[in-house]
Amino acid sequence: MTLKYINRDAGTFQVNPVDDEMIYLNNAATTWPKPDCVKDAVMECISMPVYEPGRTTMKEQTDYPYETRKRVADFFSSGRPENVIFTQNATDSLNMAIHGRVLEAGGRMHVITSDLEHNSVLRPLFTLRRAGKIDLSIIPSKDGIIDPEMVAEAVRPDTGMAVFNHGSNVLGTVQDLESIGRILSTEDIFFVIDAAQTAGLVTVDFEKIHADALAFTGHKYLFGIAGIGGLVIRSPEKLAPVRQGGTGADSSNVYMGDVPPEKFEAGTHNYPGIASLYAGLDFINRSGPGEIRRKSLEMTDMIIGGISGCDRVKVYNKDPALPIVLFNIDGIDCEDTGFMLSNVYSIVSRSGLHCSPLVHNSIDGGRGAVRLSLSCMNTVEECEKTVKAILEIAQYED
Amino acid sequence: MTLKYINRDAGTFQVNPVDDEMIYLNNAATTWPKPDCVKDAVMECISMPVYEPGRTTMKEQTDYPYETRKRVADFFSSGRPENVIFTQNATDSLNMAIHGRVLEAGGRMHVITSDLEHNSVLRPLFTLRRAGKIDLSIIPSKDGIIDPEMVAEAVRPDTGMAVFNHGSNVLGTVQDLESIGRILSTEDIFFVIDAAQTAGLVTVDFEKIHADALAFTGHKYLFGIAGIGGLVIRSPEKLAPVRQGGTGADSSNVYMGDVPPEKFEAGTHNYPGIASLYAGLDFINRSGPGEIRRKSLEMTDMIIGGISGCDRVKVYNKDPALPIVLFNIDGIDCEDTGFMLSNVYSIVSRSGLHCSPLVHNSIDGGRGAVRLSLSCMNTVEECEKTVKAILEIAQYED
Repeated sequence: MTLKYINRDAGTFQVNPVDDEMIYLNNAATTWPKPDCVKDAVMECISMPVYEPGRTTMKEQTDYPYETRKRVADFFSSGRPENVIFTQNATDSLNMAIHGRVLEAGGRMHVITSDLEHNSVLRPLFTLRRAGKIDLSIIPSKDGIIDPEMVAEAVRPDTGMAVFNHGSNVLGTVQDLESIGRILSTEDIFFVIDAAQTAGLVTVDFEKIHADALAFTGHKYLFGIAGIGGLVIRSPEKLAPVRQGGTGADSSNVYMGDVPPEKFEAGTHNYPGIASLYAGLDFINRSGPGEIRRKSLEMTDMIIGGISGCDRVKVYNKDPALPIVLFNIDGIDCEDTGFMLSNVYSIVSRSGLHCSPLVHNSIDGGRGAVRLSLSCMNTVEECEKTVKAILEIAQYED
Repeated sequence: MTLKYINRDAGTFQVNPVDDEMIYLNNAATTWPKPDCVKDAVMECISMPVYEPGRTTMKEQTDYPYETRKRVADFFSSGRPENVIFTQNATDSLNMAIHGRVLEAGGRMHVITSDLEHNSVLRPLFTLRRAGKIDLSIIPSKDGIIDPEMVAEAVRPDTGMAVFNHGSNVLGTVQDLESIGRILSTEDIFFVIDAAQTAGLVTVDFEKIHADALAFTGHKYLFGIAGIGGLVIRSPEKLAPVRQGGTGADSSNVYMGDVPPEKFEAGTHNYPGIASLYAGLDFINRSGPGEIRRKSLEMTDMIIGGISGCDRVKVYNKDPALPIVLFNIDGIDCEDTGFMLSNVYSIVSRSGLHCSPLVHNSIDGGRGAVRLSLSCMNTVEECEKTVKAILEIAQYED
């Protein structure tokens, strides 16, 4: 097979026999498979009426929202279960924090962020800047790392907020949030953390990093299902609610109340999603501290080691802190590589900009790359097959 | 047993033996049980990696987002699948429509609504009014019905939006949206419909009612699980997106694109919820037109007939168009009645203001009432038991 036969639009290479064993390496988007306990919790939750204190007679059922808030608060060492707000995903959480803070503050403010951010951070910020509500400074990363010194230098008297991701979904780097948080808390700057990629893999201590808001999602390394996320907050009075509606509490008030979590949560909860998060956290807690990350990184290193020796393969992150491999093959468009991995080898990867456009400018000139992302559910055999597949693709005649 | 023994806080009357058969009459909040096809779809969805065109190798799996958009567009006769936006619930949909329209319009506008609305409509509107972004006219209902003539009279030159619910979650009345829509479309007023209570029970024809946006939720009479809702829109250019983030499309753009559905959907979808909605719509389509409503209303009438004869029972809606019974028992607080129904009889009802505070002023002086809401999953026997229970409670000595 030579490259000239690759035609993604025409579907060439769609060999994909049904009995092919799929190798799933797209865990940075959504982990798969989910632990059995997660599937069981979802089924239990949708098989019983929703637990509502004082309302249903299913008293033996778990009060998932309350119990999950407690578990999340413990997990992130944030203390107060009522300050755990449920959302649809990390994007929703980040919008709630970013727009909510600007809305509450009223006047124009200066905001600091980095070029490593996902569009879930960049797009709300650029939209607010276009609307004249904020000034924006974007700190450039170096090898995927933000220098805390540069954060300190970017601070202005009118800086009201800073938003940083904990782990890059592109390079798998992890930021020194303690140092950044120390600088920001000294200046009383509202500090928002995007922990979408790290929650479940790297310990996040809300108190230690002096965070004001921490956004996470349930369906990545917390092993819940898609559709549930959360925002952990420190001071509810610093955020205006961006959605208003029924909360089941204080119904005669035509405004949202001041008390969390109801201040920020309107409408019917995603109860099955919350149940999955509850079970996912249990799965992580039972696995032992750091064990999921350790196992995932071991296999990640194996893949990087296996493909780095090939001249035609360029690996952009040789020593990631998260189980992510970012690479390109000389002369092959990243989308074509992804297409071949999927259709010839049944390997699920992701290719392109990964919703983080700015950082690609320095990595690959903005053309995008192929990302493999692992979880503890992957096997050594899958990684060996993946290395073999990439090396084979790299040997195709151009 | 006499009323003086009722103490909700102390948990008196928590007899509730585990083998009690629960009677679930809270379907206007969330329908239960879910059809087997819904549970199966959720399980299938969380057992397989998410379908993403060109990315996964699970080609045999349903593309739930696309197929569900088509099914929703067919269901509401709205034509364009891409104009079906997925949200977290009807509250989220209504916020997207209301805030999105005001944001897009820029300047201050006049908005018309009614006293029948849920807090998911009232709270965004009151919040916008408090922020000086809108003027607000609230049309009073009469016996749960909005007179289209009063809508016509409320229109001003600066009226930019009107929001009406299709069916009342308190009284079970259904509005004549065709007449209201005709008036509003003549004046080019953005018409938002809250179909949370009617979707699945009463035919909603998006074109016929000249709607601009229709909000629905999946977990009520569409028989999906909690956590999924939607907004059907006519003209994407009339709404600004209220959330910004990654869409998987056009990643290098730091703003949201102009093309629906991506313009309004950011972050990872609630795939299991979407799958449940897909299956729920199939369940409704297979049941035959109007059959779910017919069966539910037959039993509703049976309950109303059975309790109306009792002097101490006041039924507020003798002839509802939706399967809702709203009542109070003389001398007993609605919360106490709900507590007894739950704890003595294992009947799940809902009591209070049902997140619709304004309409209660004219119904019950704002003190709230007990609501029973049925679905096609209820049985005649359950209704008979419920009538017996209410009559027994009404006979307690005060």
